[in-house]
Amino acid sequence: MLSNSFLNLPKKVRIVEVGPRDGLQNEKSIVSLENKLKFIKLLNLSGLHEIEATSFVRAQKIPQMSDGGELFNLLKKDSDLLTTRLISLVPNLIGMEAALNAGVRDIAVFTSTSNSFNKKNINASIDESMLRIKELMALANANKISTRGYISTVFGCPYEGKTSLDQLKKIADQLLELGVYEISLGDTIGIANPKQVAEVIEFLSKDFKLDFLSMHFHDTRGLAVANVLTSFEMGITSFDSSAGGLGGCPYALGASGNVATEDLYYLFDSLGIETGIDIEKLSAASSFILKVLNREGQSKFLKAYLSSKSSPS
Amino acid sequence: MLSNSFLNLPKKVRIVEVGPRDGLQNEKSIVSLENKLKFIKLLNLSGLHEIEATSFVRAQKIPQMSDGGELFNLLKKDSDLLTTRLISLVPNLIGMEAALNAGVRDIAVFTSTSNSFNKKNINASIDESMLRIKELMALANANKISTRGYISTVFGCPYEGKTSLDQLKKIADQLLELGVYEISLGDTIGIANPKQVAEVIEFLSKDFKLDFLSMHFHDTRGLAVANVLTSFEMGITSFDSSAGGLGGCPYALGASGNVATEDLYYLFDSLGIETGIDIEKLSAASSFILKVLNREGQSKFLKAYLSSKSSPS
Repeated sequence: MLSNSFLNLPKKVRIVEVGPRDGLQNEKSIVSLENKLKFIKLLNLSGLHEIEATSFVRAQKIPQMSDGGELFNLLKKDSDLLTTRLISLVPNLIGMEAALNAGVRDIAVFTSTSNSFNKKNINASIDESMLRIKELMALANANKISTRGYISTVFGCPYEGKTSLDQLKKIADQLLELGVYEISLGDTIGIANPKQVAEVIEFLSKDFKLDFLSMHFHDTRGLAVANVLTSFEMGITSFDSSAGGLGGCPYALGASGNVATEDLYYLFDSLGIETGIDIEKLSAASSFILKVLNREGQSKFLKAYLSSKSSPS
Repeated sequence: MLSNSFLNLPKKVRIVEVGPRDGLQNEKSIVSLENKLKFIKLLNLSGLHEIEATSFVRAQKIPQMSDGGELFNLLKKDSDLLTTRLISLVPNLIGMEAALNAGVRDIAVFTSTSNSFNKKNINASIDESMLRIKELMALANANKISTRGYISTVFGCPYEGKTSLDQLKKIADQLLELGVYEISLGDTIGIANPKQVAEVIEFLSKDFKLDFLSMHFHDTRGLAVANVLTSFEMGITSFDSSAGGLGGCPYALGASGNVATEDLYYLFDSLGIETGIDIEKLSAASSFILKVLNREGQSKFLKAYLSSKSSPS
C-alpha cells in the first residue's frame, strides 16, 4: 500500500485560464468591454499566457460574449499580449468567419460525449456537431489557426448520467484527425471523482499521448483539487481553471464554477511544481473581477492569501 | 508515470467527528447545552459513532466548553449513545478527575511538535506537556479509560514554521508507550500539502503501524480533501472531520475550520469506500447546527447536496 508517488513528477504544468470566457459566461451580471480587457491584461501580467478570452457565438444566445469581435480588436493591438495564446470559442462556420475577421489566431471547438447534452446545448447530435467542427476547422486550418478541442460531460451528463468511454475515444480520434493540438476533458457538472479520473486517463492513454490531454474540472462538490492531483499523478500536465473560481452560482446545482486558478497555483506550488504564476498579481486580477461582479471568490486559498496580506505583520 | 493507484485500496474508513468539540470551540457564538446534545444525537444517528463531544478544561479559558460535565451527564444516560465512542479532550489531572466524575469512558490528550505553540496554547513546553499527559493517563489507565493522542502543528506551526520529524517521532513513541490507541496528526493551521503528507506518513510508517495513525486536516487553503486522498492512498484509514466544516471563521487566517465530514463522505463514497454515514441524516445534523450558529457551512458538497434536495425533481 505504502508508496510515495511524489518522487518522480513532471517539473512544470500548463494552466489554461478560462475565466474570461467559461467563467464570465456563467456570471449573471454583464461585464463591460473595458473591464474584460483589463481582466485579461491582469491575468496575462500574472504569468498566465494561455487565456480563453471570448467566444464567437450568437449574441442573442450568450449576451455576455456579444462583444467578442470588439474585444479581440483591442486585444490584438495590445503589445503585452503579442505572445499570449488568446483562445476564442467558436461553434460553427459563421462564428469562424467572424473570428477570422477579428484577427483571432487561436480557437477552441466543442462537443460532448452525450447526445442529449449536445441537443440541449447546441441543438445538434454528436455526429452533427462533429460535422460543424470539420467544416469550421477546414477554414481554421487553411488560415493556420491553432485549435483546441473541448469535450463536455466526459465524467457525467445531467441528462444521461455516465457516458460511454468508447464514444469519448471516438470523438478524441476525430478531433486528433482534424488537427486539434490538445483535447480538454470537461467535468461539466462537477461530478468526477479521483478513481473515475484515473480510469478515464488510463483508458485514453492506450491510444493518445498524455500531452494531448488537458483536464477541465468544476468544483461543484469539492473534489476538483483532488481530481487535479490524481490527473497530475497519472502524468497529465495541462489544466483549465478560472481566476477566483469564476462561473456559476455556488447555490445552484450543476452551475458551480471552474476550479479556481489560485487553488491550482497553491496545489502545484506546494508540491514544488512550476506554474509560471505570480500569485500576488493573480490575486490582483481575481480581486479586480470579483469586485466588478460584486461577488465573493470560490477559492479558499485566495481568501487565506488575501487575509494574510491584510493582516498586520 | 501512469499507474492507477485505486485498484487495491482498503474497503472502509473510520471517521472521527470532531464538530461538537474542535468545531464548536472555534465558533464565537455559545451553543446551549440542549443544542449540543441534539447535535451529538443527530451526528450519531447519521452513522458517526466516534464523536469528540466536549472537553474538560478551565471554563474561563474556553467558555464554549464550560458545560462538559453537564453535557456528559446527559450523554451517558442516552440509550442511543451506549455503543458510541464519546471522546472528551482532557488537558491535565484536574480535567481527568472532572471527566471521571462525569462518567467519561474515552478521552483525548494533546501536545504539539512545537515548543512555541505549546507555550502559547497550554503554557507548557513539549516535555512539560508530556509529563501532564503521563500523570493524567496514569489515572485514565487505572480506570480503563481509552485514550486518543492529538499531536498539533505536525505540518507547520504559526510561530516556528516546519517542525522536526524527529520530535514528532519522539512524541509518538511516548504516547504509544503511555498506551494511547491511536495518534491524530494535526494540520492545525491548514498548511499541509499532499507531498508533505506522503513524506510524514512514510517517515512514521518505519516505526508505527499505519492503523496507529489518524489524520486531522483543516481546510484553510483548500487542500484538505487532496491531503486526505493522499493519506488514504498511503494506507491511512482514520480521519478527523467536522460536520459542515465547523470551526473558525473563513476570513481569518489560521482560523479556518476542520475539513467537512460531508466532503470526506463524498470523497470516499465516490471511490466506493464505506464510511458508515447516511448523508441525508448527516446533512440534517449539519443544517441544524449551522442554523443554530447562524452561519453558512464550508462544504461545497453539502451545498450541492442541499441544493439538489430543494430543487424540483
